[in-house]
Amino acid sequence: MGGSYAKALKRLGYSVSALDCSEDAVRYALDAGMIDRGFTVPDAESVSDADTVIFALYPGTFREWIARYQHLLKPGAMLTDVTGVKSCVVYDIQQMLRPDVEFIASHPMAGREVSGVQNSDDRIFRDANFIVVPTDRNSREAVDWCRSLGQILGFARIAVLSPEEHDRMIGFVSQLTHCIAIALMTCSENRHLADYTGDSFRDLTRIARINDAMWSELFLCNKGPLLEQMDRFLAEMKELRSLLEQDDREGLRSKMRLSTERRAAFDRPGRNG
Amino acid sequence: MGGSYAKALKRLGYSVSALDCSEDAVRYALDAGMIDRGFTVPDAESVSDADTVIFALYPGTFREWIARYQHLLKPGAMLTDVTGVKSCVVYDIQQMLRPDVEFIASHPMAGREVSGVQNSDDRIFRDANFIVVPTDRNSREAVDWCRSLGQILGFARIAVLSPEEHDRMIGFVSQLTHCIAIALMTCSENRHLADYTGDSFRDLTRIARINDAMWSELFLCNKGPLLEQMDRFLAEMKELRSLLEQDDREGLRSKMRLSTERRAAFDRPGRNG
Repeated sequence: MGGSYAKALKRLGYSVSALDCSEDAVRYALDAGMIDRGFTVPDAESVSDADTVIFALYPGTFREWIARYQHLLKPGAMLTDVTGVKSCVVYDIQQMLRPDVEFIASHPMAGREVSGVQNSDDRIFRDANFIVVPTDRNSREAVDWCRSLGQILGFARIAVLSPEEHDRMIGFVSQLTHCIAIALMTCSENRHLADYTGDSFRDLTRIARINDAMWSELFLCNKGPLLEQMDRFLAEMKELRSLLEQDDREGLRSKMRLSTERRAAFDRPGRNG
Repeated sequence: MGGSYAKALKRLGYSVSALDCSEDAVRYALDAGMIDRGFTVPDAESVSDADTVIFALYPGTFREWIARYQHLLKPGAMLTDVTGVKSCVVYDIQQMLRPDVEFIASHPMAGREVSGVQNSDDRIFRDANFIVVPTDRNSREAVDWCRSLGQILGFARIAVLSPEEHDRMIGFVSQLTHCIAIALMTCSENRHLADYTGDSFRDLTRIARINDAMWSELFLCNKGPLLEQMDRFLAEMKELRSLLEQDDREGLRSKMRLSTERRAAFDRPGRNG
């Protein structure tokens, strides 16, 4: 994700420095002209020039970085992130942050199944949502700045949600669906069924190929909202199961009609469902 | 599905007659050159000429048709179907059928979200599975004939499964996934989340737009195998839920690794996952 941000910002003429623990990644980005300067160690040279710092780190690492290196930040710097969960990060970071810099959280809801700088691609922003996630501690200016960042990066839609609203939404549209895809793959030895799967099964389970280090951390960081979404979904599956067991055709049809009606609201004009 | 069969067979030079209760559908198919003759009433003229009859009816209607009209069938005729569930249909039909005709079940695992003759399209067969579903009562010749029907129609892969194997497989790869998509849509009022859904959520719920008359019948006809698949999936979701509740990071990661490994086996060469 850092690479995709760099590509977009560099193309627009911004001066972009990258800080990454992998020397290979930094060299690749330099060779590809994605960045102006690259570093592997946080120090005065690599950090203190930046007016804006975008953190693309796992939640735990992000907190550690701030605790350890925030003294290097330029006074007045504006910080944001790309983290997929918010409540567990935003309040901690804002709590420990120097008063002369500001952190406004945001979440670019775009991604690829592949990671790494060599797979970065800022075209993934074009049809995606950018969520600005302010708290009471954020200034009006920071919210506006963060909205324009989303616009500059080329996102299709920009929204503002509280950390709690964001985490409930993400628990449903992203984390619950990943749980479902995982459970479909692990609930039984099903390799012999690969020959019989059609497109709908493939669609449903594409996200079952998952970066376990990252997703386990994202699940655990959003434990409360995700458990709540799992419980709602489990209760509904059990209700469907009862209708089937009791041969309740009308009950099943009524669920199917509600499902059809709600799903229609998710279609976007000009998109294939 | 009947229309797609007609298109494919007519193009290959077979003489195709259609029997459909809708006059409009018959007229459309005649005008479009998809059939040679069209009828709306089962009688000697519409039925008795056919060497092969392909039934594209709901399970209940299929049984009724055979009970009421099988006397019209040509001696020696070969019958097959396109029904998505098998055990609940095949044995009943074979039990009641005249001894001088043979019914060999088959399932073209292709379909579109839209139905009706005007949406028929035999190109959907090109990348799909055709399952021949014989019982002990079927002749070797019928199995061979049915295999070649799948080849003639242009299916990519042809397999032979028993009714019970077929229904377990369909319970998992098709019916369980439709249940999940329905439950995701009906488990909470989520219309306000439409703006935040990405492609993976759309992929997962595309099949939540569902023909409730057909699917409730298919679910109820396959009640046993589907309940079994739902129970396995529910147990696995509950296990994931416990791992999360207990902050068991290693347990979650291990499920994710198994899921990733299994899903990889579902990728086909030359296909995008």
